[in-house]
This record gives sequence, C-alpha cells and structure tokens, in this order.
Amino acid sequence: MFESAELGHAVDKKFYDKQRPALRADLLDAQTQIAVEKNFPVIVLVGGVDNSGKGDTVNTLSEWMDPRHIQTHAMGDPTDEECERPPMWRFWRALPPKGKVGIFFNSWYTQPIRLRARDETKNVDLERSLEEIARFERMLYDEGALIVKFWLHLSKKKQKERMKALEHDRRTRWRVTDEDWKNHTNYDALRRVSERALRETSTAQAPWIVVEAFDARYRNLTVGKALRDAMRARLDRKERKPRPSHVPPPPAAVPIDDRDVLRSLDLTKSLGEKKYESRLSAAQERLNVASRSKKFERISVVLAFEGNDAAGKGGAIRRVTRSLDARVYHVHSIAAPTEEERAQPYLWRFWRQLPRKRHIAIFDRSWYGRVLVERVEGFAPADDWMRAYGEINDFEERLADHGIVLVKFWLSISKKEQLARFEARKKTAFKRFKITEEDWRNRKKWPEYERAVVDMVDRTSTDVAPWHLVEANDKRYARVKILETLCDRIEAAM
Amino acid sequence: MFESAELGHAVDKKFYDKQRPALRADLLDAQTQIAVEKNFPVIVLVGGVDNSGKGDTVNTLSEWMDPRHIQTHAMGDPTDEECERPPMWRFWRALPPKGKVGIFFNSWYTQPIRLRARDETKNVDLERSLEEIARFERMLYDEGALIVKFWLHLSKKKQKERMKALEHDRRTRWRVTDEDWKNHTNYDALRRVSERALRETSTAQAPWIVVEAFDARYRNLTVGKALRDAMRARLDRKERKPRPSHVPPPPAAVPIDDRDVLRSLDLTKSLGEKKYESRLSAAQERLNVASRSKKFERISVVLAFEGNDAAGKGGAIRRVTRSLDARVYHVHSIAAPTEEERAQPYLWRFWRQLPRKRHIAIFDRSWYGRVLVERVEGFAPADDWMRAYGEINDFEERLADHGIVLVKFWLSISKKEQLARFEARKKTAFKRFKITEEDWRNRKKWPEYERAVVDMVDRTSTDVAPWHLVEANDKRYARVKILETLCDRIEAAM
Repeated sequence: MFESAELGHAVDKKFYDKQRPALRADLLDAQTQIAVEKNFPVIVLVGGVDNSGKGDTVNTLSEWMDPRHIQTHAMGDPTDEECERPPMWRFWRALPPKGKVGIFFNSWYTQPIRLRARDETKNVDLERSLEEIARFERMLYDEGALIVKFWLHLSKKKQKERMKALEHDRRTRWRVTDEDWKNHTNYDALRRVSERALRETSTAQAPWIVVEAFDARYRNLTVGKALRDAMRARLDRKERKPRPSHVPPPPAAVPIDDRDVLRSLDLTKSLGEKKYESRLSAAQERLNVASRSKKFERISVVLAFEGNDAAGKGGAIRRVTRSLDARVYHVHSIAAPTEEERAQPYLWRFWRQLPRKRHIAIFDRSWYGRVLVERVEGFAPADDWMRAYGEINDFEERLADHGIVLVKFWLSISKKEQLARFEARKKTAFKRFKITEEDWRNRKKWPEYERAVVDMVDRTSTDVAPWHLVEANDKRYARVKILETLCDRIEAAM
Repeated sequence: MFESAELGHAVDKKFYDKQRPALRADLLDAQTQIAVEKNFPVIVLVGGVDNSGKGDTVNTLSEWMDPRHIQTHAMGDPTDEECERPPMWRFWRALPPKGKVGIFFNSWYTQPIRLRARDETKNVDLERSLEEIARFERMLYDEGALIVKFWLHLSKKKQKERMKALEHDRRTRWRVTDEDWKNHTNYDALRRVSERALRETSTAQAPWIVVEAFDARYRNLTVGKALRDAMRARLDRKERKPRPSHVPPPPAAVPIDDRDVLRSLDLTKSLGEKKYESRLSAAQERLNVASRSKKFERISVVLAFEGNDAAGKGGAIRRVTRSLDARVYHVHSIAAPTEEERAQPYLWRFWRQLPRKRHIAIFDRSWYGRVLVERVEGFAPADDWMRAYGEINDFEERLADHGIVLVKFWLSISKKEQLARFEARKKTAFKRFKITEEDWRNRKKWPEYERAVVDMVDRTSTDVAPWHLVEANDKRYARVKILETLCDRIEAAM
C-alpha cells in the first residue's frame, strides 16, 4: 500500500512555481462553481503519520482556494457536549452543507487506528469500526457528497529525519511532542494497522490517495492536483447525483395468505376506565421515579412515535411528558426539512437533535418518514428509500452503542376508527387544526401505507431497536401499553 | 411590588376543576394558531423565590398545552462550549423560533439578582445588567416576540412553611437543598434586589406578572390565564408586527460643506511592491506568532469585513488567513439568511457563529447588512434599520465585555476604481463568478450607499468597537494596513 510513497518523490522549486498558478486557478474555478451551484458538498480527509505535514497541507489548500467556502475542522478532544453523544455526533455536526468544502484534519479514522496500534483494542474492534466507517462513507456518497481522502506517508527513517529537522528549528520545535516520539517507536504497529484500515476502506466511492510527504512541494502539488481532478470530474459528469443502483426495488410483495404483522394485531383490545386510571398512574409514577434516579444520569432516551393519522400519537406523548419534569424532555415534531437540513444528508436533522445524558428526546414522527410518507407519496426515489432501511439500522446501532435507550412505537388503528376520529376532530374547537385535506388524501392510500409499514417493521425491527406495535383503537389501552413498555425498557437499561 | 402577592390568595378544588377545561382548550387553541401561522415566538420566563413551585408551574403549562410546540430550557450550569462565549450566548441559542413557545426556567435575571443579593456584586453592576436586559427584551419585542414574564412570590414566612412541608414528605424532600436554606436566611436581601429588578424591567413591552405561589391551584390558574390572555390579545391584534415608532427616520442629512468621513479619506495612498512585500510578511509573521502564543488562549477574535463591491475584501481576508493555522479560523460569508435564521431575531445568525476561545471568526460582510444593503435597497423598513444601530452597539459591547477582540474594517474605493475592477474581473477565468448583474445595479446607487456608510460609521464606531477605514484603491496599501491594524489590536488585547 505504501510502496509507491517511499520512492523519494520530490520536485524542485522551479517546477513547483511553474505548476502552482494554473493549479490554483483550476482549484478556485472548481470551488466557485461548486459554491454557486450548491449541488453537493466536498469532504476532504487529511490523515497520515505524525509530522508528515498534515497542517501544512491543509494550510496550503486553504491558501490556494477561497477560504470563504472552506470549513476546516481540527478534531481534538471532544467538548463535554460532544462526550454526551455518540462518537460520530461531532462529525455529523461538522459536515459541510452542499456547496462547501469541509476539510477534516484527523477524522473518524484517527481513534480506531490509534487505539488498535496501541493494543488498547482488538482486531475485532478495529474490524467493526472499519465496517461502520465504510457504511458511513457509503451513505455520504449516496447522499451526493464528493469524498476525497488523503493519507500522508513517511517511512520510519524519513519520519525520524523530519522530526529531527523540526526540532532543530526554534520556530518549529513546538510541533514535535513527546507523544510523537512515543508514536515513532511504535511506528511499525501504526503502519500495519493503518495499512489495513486503508485497504479495507479504499472503496470505489471513496478511495484513499496515499501521498509521499517528505518533500513539501511534491506533497502539496500532488494533493492539490488530486483534489482538483476529483472536483472537476464530478462537476463535468452529466448526471449529477450518483445513483447507487438502477435495479428497481422489489415489488411490494403481499403475502399470499394475506397475513401480515399489522393484520395480526388484535385491535379490539381495550381497557376499562378504572383499570386504565390505576395502571396509567402506576406507570407514570414508575417513569417519574426512574427519570429521577441516580442511574438515569448515565443514560439518555430517544422515543420515536409513528402511527396512522389520528392514531393518538399526540395524546400518548402527553401522557409520557406528564410524568416527566419539563426540564428533562424535548419534543421534536418532524415536518418538512428546513433549508439547512435539505443541504445535508437525510439523517442529519435527527443526529442534531440527539439528547444529552439524562435527557429524553421525543420524536413525533421520525426518521422513518423516508420509508413511509416519502415512499408512498413518491417524494423520495426508490433508490433512496430502499437504502434508508440500512442507514437507519446503522443510525440506531450507533445510538444503542452509546447507551441510548431507543424505543419505537407504531400506533395502529383500523380504517373505520380513523374515519370516526376524523369526524370527531372537526367538532372540537382546539382540535380543528389537526385535520387537514392531506389527512383525507393520505387515507385514500391506506393499502400502500400498510405495505410500507409492514416493510418497515420487517426491515428495521432489530435486537437493539425493536418496534413496539401498539393496538390503538382503544386509546386507553394504547397509552397504558406505551407507558408500561417505556418503563420496562428504561428500567432494563438502568 | 409584592403586596398583592401576600394576601393569601387561594382557590378551592371545585373552582379549579371547573375552570381548568375551558382554560386548557383556550391555551391549546391559541398555541396551535401560533404554531400554524408562525408569525411570532412566545418567550415565557418563570422566575421567583426558591421553592415557590416554578417546576410545578412549568410542568402544568406543558401538560395543559401541546408539548410538541413547547421548548423548555432549564438554565443550569453552562457547558464548556457555553463558557467560552459571552454569557448571553446560551440564551440566544435557546430562543424559540417563530411559531414556538419557549419556556425559560430561570433566565437572564437569575445570575444578576443572585450575585447582588449575596453582595458579590455592587449596585452599579446590577444596574448595568438590568439595563442590558431591558435593551435585550426591547429588541426581542421589536423583532416581534411575545414576552410573558412570571415571578412566583412567597413571603418569608410562607417560604419557610412550604420548605418544611416539602421536607416532611419523602417524595419531595430532595427538592429542598442546603442552598435553599441558605437563601432563606438571606430572604430579605433577595427580596429587596428582586423588587428592584422587577421594577426596573417591568416595561410596557414585557411587564412582570407577580403571582402569589403558596396555593398551587391559584398559582397555576393565574399563570395559565395570564399566558392565555397574552397570546390571545396578540393573535387578535390587527397589525401583527409591533411598530416601535411611526416617526419617520431623520432624512439622510448631507453635511452642508460636503465633507464626510469617506470623502476625507486619501485614496491615493499606495505602497511600492518591495515595501509591500516586506511589511506584509512582517505583519503576517506577527499575526502568526500572536495566534500561537500562550496568551492567545484566553481570547478570541471576531473580524468584520465590509466595503464597496470589488473593494478587495476577499483578497484581504486571504492575506489574513494565510498567516494562520487553518484550524483556528473560520470564514463566514454572509448572504441571504436561511429559513431557520429568518424565524429568529436579526442578530441570531451572528450570535450562533461566535468563536470559541482561541479561535478567530472572520465575517465577509456582517451584521451591518441591515444598515447598508437592507437600508438602501429597502429590504428592511426604516424602523428596523434605525433601531439596528443601537442593537448592534449592544451586541458588540457584549462581545467586548467577554474579552472578544472585535475588529471592523471598511474598505473604501473610488467609483472610478470600482469600474476598472469590474471590467478586469470579466476577463479572469476564476473571477468570472465574482461579477453579477447585482453589482452593476448597486453601483448605480453609489450616493445612497455612501450616505449609509457615513451614518454607519458615525453611529457604530465606539470605544469598544471602532471602525477602521481602509483606503483601498491600492490593494497593497489596504492589505498591509489591515494586517498591521489587526496585529496592533490583538497584541493590545493580550
């Protein structure tokens, strides 16, 4: 992997000075076109061995291009707000929007490689991290991002040489730290692990570009040209948004015996007034006690409510929030994405709302919109919603890994019950806003929605994030089931 | 101020139960209309003495209303990201957008009152804080926010009674802390300071509503009704956006002798190639050294670049960024606000971009857009841009108070020089995006822009944030002056 980057590549000053002006003009030209058209973001990773000149390279790129459309992120120690979220949260919040270039100095590769090289993790951990990363980058690519990954390489001998040289100069001495020397003695392990990481994550969508880094001129020109070529190729491609597959999605297969998870629900389940009152308040008390307990400080909770229109999501959410102190929860109503959200990958708007420790984020409708309404109404092309299942499973796994309790409810009512509720809503003053033309339109597509829900449950009900299907024709039954399920899940996690 | 809240107000359960359903329906109705119309945000402050039931009140409001349109913020200890910004930053980032209700449990009043009551600050500090707050709330009001401020009051005797009662019950014992008892012994001071704070900040735009808090039913009904009335009155008002003044702004007074700060600039100032090279690289070296020094870790820098079209802002910014490590600066190009930004007060989009300690935020165009392009093109009504001067001065004072070095540049070129540069831009490949129809249109309004700039300098060049006017017909002279000024300012601050 690194052979070509140990040949002693170098260019002289004359060559460099001659090449630079045209390269700079090309870079600026491509960058400006990207900024004006706002069709895709450019994500540049600059990784490599210590003292290979990553900082210099980033500074040179910023110097050659227009700093107004570049966002550089040095990923140092996470802040306390970052520590309380899954490790990838800080990268999600730093992703450049369409039209911008985001340069990551160090990246999602840094930690997994470093830990493995120090033997603080095992091969299986590294393997898992690399798979996660590959899926993450695949998602970025599918969402239209241009990803350019540079690895700045130095042989062990050249690294030592460079560190000595830096230490020799008063102005650069500060750059070589004790940790760098420690890493240097561990060079072979780092090299082995890096090679493996690069090999496994050099995908067609996001290949690594290994650059010999000893000669600064060679390094900068090589990086600049590769970035220019990547941007130009992307700009000149006819069809802008990459299509991962042109195979049509499998037809929505209705089971031949007409049974499915929704139809198997017993919607006649109900609860009498008295039983309801006592079980509801018992569950609310449980939830309240749990949310104030010492152990709760170590976790956070994400609730997703989905369901047919008028299935009673709002009422159920209110029963949950009533048992909680208003300071620990936040309800997110998911409607059309904002402009800033549309300039980012689909899941960005959910990542940004992840709760801090000890907090509860309640989503009234959720990231499942893509495989429900967007699928049925045709707002998202089939390719997009087909890949959403996998992306969502990844997302939920990241939450679970971080100790977030993720509880997903589907509230199911019959078509007849929905009609009765629509009619009733028209009569109640403070509910009159709740019923719109759209609700009636959606109702006409009942079978399509049903199919989408069944697919969703089949494809995204996982061990770490199971779907809880709630028979909701009887509101009392539904609310009690939701509260009790929630308590069970939280108590189990604590 | 508190007399009416020490009369022993109370209502019985029967009355409460009878009033509640209609009140709840009214609240939901108003809240839903606000959420649908998205014309203004509702900002609710819940303050008051310890153990007066602030939490209960907030929970009751959340229970009565639709939690999906409420954002509750408990302002506890600031996070490290918050500590690195001015104290008001955390409130700005928590402001509800139009259509939402934001409830602040504790608020911008908490700290000033608490510190003064403990004698940790002086009267003059309190006075200053209250004035800042009054201006902040005035700004929110002018931006269209509905502000409802509740103060929950207990007499000293009733407070003690309530704390004893809470301690007596196993389930509520945790609510009474040692600090609460300490505050209780300091009750008289707290009362005195609070009264003063309430008196001075009970404005027509945002009056305090003092509520006797001992009887929970009385307290909750009173708060609920006051909030309902405030929302309903606002919704039913014909003209939605409040107009602080119907007096037309003073006509742009051209000085009778035709002299002004712009015309007094000597645009013939220039610098030879050789002098330029040596002074530029000396200044860049100074800036680089400063940005890596130990003392720099305690400050942060905000740069604002304004100037005529084609005055060379981009080039100047690049000369600044070239001296810096790409990891410490971030350039913000200010264009039209996004949807999320339009749902917030004007200055919100600048507050959100304030840098952390040790970082430099560079604004290519800035918060001065309102008094420049928005004024001249009529995008903002006169009332709005007239009040912007004061709001901007407040904003900049907040930055300065926090130790942020704020450096503002106006790059001035002559009309003739602008024409030459426009023509030249059409010829250079990577600059072709830089010249648009709009530039030519703006050029026709040269005198109006000139007037706006003079007004801007006169009204916003302050001790803490002076304008640096830069003669920019000669790019070399301008760049050197900018770099050297920047170094002077940063070194002075360190």
